[in-house]
Amino acid sequence: MEYATQMEAAKKGILTQQMQSVAAQEQIAPETLLQRVAAGTVVIPANHHHKSLRPHGIGQGLSTKINVNLGISGDCRDYTCELAKAKLALQFDAEAIMDLSNYGKTNTFRKQLLELSTAMVGTVPMYDAVGYLEKDLRDIKAKDFLEVVRAHAEEGVDFVTIHAGINRKSIDSFERSGRRMNIVSRGGSLIYAWMKMTGNENPFFEYFDDLMDILYAHDVTISLGDAMRPGCIDDATDAAQVSELVELGLLTERAWSHHVQVMIEGPGHMMLQEIAPNMQMEKRLCHNAPFYVLGPLVTDIAPGYDHITSAIGGAVAAAAGADFLCYVTPAEHLRLPSLPDVKEGILAAKIAAHAGDLVKNVPGARAWDNRMGDARRALDWGAMFKEALDREKAEAYFQSAHPAEKNTCTMCGKMCAVRNMNRILQGESVSLQ
Amino acid sequence: MEYATQMEAAKKGILTQQMQSVAAQEQIAPETLLQRVAAGTVVIPANHHHKSLRPHGIGQGLSTKINVNLGISGDCRDYTCELAKAKLALQFDAEAIMDLSNYGKTNTFRKQLLELSTAMVGTVPMYDAVGYLEKDLRDIKAKDFLEVVRAHAEEGVDFVTIHAGINRKSIDSFERSGRRMNIVSRGGSLIYAWMKMTGNENPFFEYFDDLMDILYAHDVTISLGDAMRPGCIDDATDAAQVSELVELGLLTERAWSHHVQVMIEGPGHMMLQEIAPNMQMEKRLCHNAPFYVLGPLVTDIAPGYDHITSAIGGAVAAAAGADFLCYVTPAEHLRLPSLPDVKEGILAAKIAAHAGDLVKNVPGARAWDNRMGDARRALDWGAMFKEALDREKAEAYFQSAHPAEKNTCTMCGKMCAVRNMNRILQGESVSLQ
Repeated sequence: MEYATQMEAAKKGILTQQMQSVAAQEQIAPETLLQRVAAGTVVIPANHHHKSLRPHGIGQGLSTKINVNLGISGDCRDYTCELAKAKLALQFDAEAIMDLSNYGKTNTFRKQLLELSTAMVGTVPMYDAVGYLEKDLRDIKAKDFLEVVRAHAEEGVDFVTIHAGINRKSIDSFERSGRRMNIVSRGGSLIYAWMKMTGNENPFFEYFDDLMDILYAHDVTISLGDAMRPGCIDDATDAAQVSELVELGLLTERAWSHHVQVMIEGPGHMMLQEIAPNMQMEKRLCHNAPFYVLGPLVTDIAPGYDHITSAIGGAVAAAAGADFLCYVTPAEHLRLPSLPDVKEGILAAKIAAHAGDLVKNVPGARAWDNRMGDARRALDWGAMFKEALDREKAEAYFQSAHPAEKNTCTMCGKMCAVRNMNRILQGESVSLQ
Repeated sequence: MEYATQMEAAKKGILTQQMQSVAAQEQIAPETLLQRVAAGTVVIPANHHHKSLRPHGIGQGLSTKINVNLGISGDCRDYTCELAKAKLALQFDAEAIMDLSNYGKTNTFRKQLLELSTAMVGTVPMYDAVGYLEKDLRDIKAKDFLEVVRAHAEEGVDFVTIHAGINRKSIDSFERSGRRMNIVSRGGSLIYAWMKMTGNENPFFEYFDDLMDILYAHDVTISLGDAMRPGCIDDATDAAQVSELVELGLLTERAWSHHVQVMIEGPGHMMLQEIAPNMQMEKRLCHNAPFYVLGPLVTDIAPGYDHITSAIGGAVAAAAGADFLCYVTPAEHLRLPSLPDVKEGILAAKIAAHAGDLVKNVPGARAWDNRMGDARRALDWGAMFKEALDREKAEAYFQSAHPAEKNTCTMCGKMCAVRNMNRILQGESVSLQ
């Protein structure tokens, strides 16, 4: 093999099978894609060992991708339900699934997921460390953490979230400025607690080159986690967040020197007007590495509806350059999501991604909306359902009500503007009686 | 009485009871509000005959308001259900209810609604014309339309949508350019059909001064309807839409010369990046009259989820200057909404309005989010529910799951970042076992 990673191949001018597949699917020239993978502005997370994968690209000029979180936790140990979430994600064409399992037989579940998932699979090895190593947090040694990453890499995980940017330097900004919600990243808070309890530097920062060797060998994309993302509107774009982003940008170049593919993770909770500037800041500081955002949630006051607060922020983020959206469900801040919550979250994220794709003018995006417009003008309900993001729901809604006037819906009946315009433009007269 | 309308009072320097109430509620100086009402940048729709009204202001510097549509139609004649929708609107603090009834005993229902509604009530008299006049569309005479408006005004309706900008001049732009979805406004399509069948000019345009006399007498705010709003992404910001907006701006000044308060209605379906420019265009062409938008829906492909496509567009619109958002429910494009659909629509619109208010920096908006942040940091679930936009849903979600670790939720349990940060920052150690 002349290369270990997609980035290495691209730098050598080798067009891989994965690149060809992604280029075809995105309707762009393979050579253009190759250049972007070489430059790091596009990643194709594709672990050598993930045999069922249908590869996707994330980044410059490509359609916006979405990720679905799931996994086994201490309070919810229903393996069947978590696998059903994975199937739902695949059904609605989510391009990525993150397995956030942190309890019990995590590697059994991970293997099952990797076998069935045509979507790329990501993990946060830090969550799994306590269970995998069978030690409590303070007793884990720095290099132990790398062993967990190695286990995930060997099993076929396509990308891993690593909180390497929360180091002594960026923590100084957090501790000197203070903030309303402190650290709300699960992995980030564990690293912070470990650093405080042991007095050591962040192991993923201290042993970053060793980490790169592991990721390089299996072509695992690193998703540089934002431990200090804002957990409320009031903490957005503050010293802690920005200091960590500076570190992530510096680490990006170091990872690239190892030919390791890099994504950057981003906020979080944030007012609407801060979103576009944050996208620009990431692109500048992180040398146009793809941006993977959680939200942003544009207000804190709507628990139970955070799929909507995040769809608003996600759409604006995607339109302003975010490449990859992590879904948020109505259960966010309240409980582990149920299967219906997961569906709501997936649809909201797909809408946000597509709204962004219209702005990005990615091939095929506008044509889809235009087909729906044509179907609506023709009052062709079959065609409308065919173009609907969630055909089943659209059809069930329509079928549940019974308009007296053929081909209309109960919203307007005989007063249907489309029906009446079609008649008058064809020279017929319009009667409402 | 020295004045008939709020605008006339403001021009004379008279601070009305309604202005005082609105100023107190918005936490702004009454004199500032008075100047804005005089200049037409704020409206306070408050018909003399609507006795149960709690007045609200719409426009410059004020919080973003939302409207809930309901009403009796030919296919759904359930008076009880429509009144239940009105009560739901009031429960969640919608500031306006539009009664779009177009079938049966419309005035009986309207009177009931006006009696119970502390929210302002709007109508589209055009919908009611066919039923009220007991004639088919083509047989209605130009001045007959004004009689329907007069009936609504005398009954206490606070604002009326009048499609006066779709005249021979703006129709020329529509007919010469063509567009994918033609005219999707119900009232607009009826006016267009009537004009084509009779060969006459739009009666609301032709007899605009007579119309103003009716509205002036009862202080009915005119909401200048956008008959040619885009009905799909592909029609946004086209010749038809912009030509009509030019007419609406010209009519705004004419209404103001009669001391009639004016709002402008806006899109519609529109890509994200067109929204802010459209808000600016309205403010310029319509002399900063308040902007009332339906959506905008940022994609056409998600029937069943248009409360989300519209929350995205509505939030961005509000942040860019829209003053008033018409809710959209999941039933949009599919059926008349059910009661649960109405609730989903209200919540989505409230979220969009508040996300906009954070950007507008209206008094009290940011403080609300900060209280939620504080409650979350303290893991004070009671306080979180108290601050939640929909307390009942948030509480039900939380109560449905049972974390082993006190004070956390099942999303993270012992790995709760907030819990662990609180411990480590208090000098305690963090254990996950």
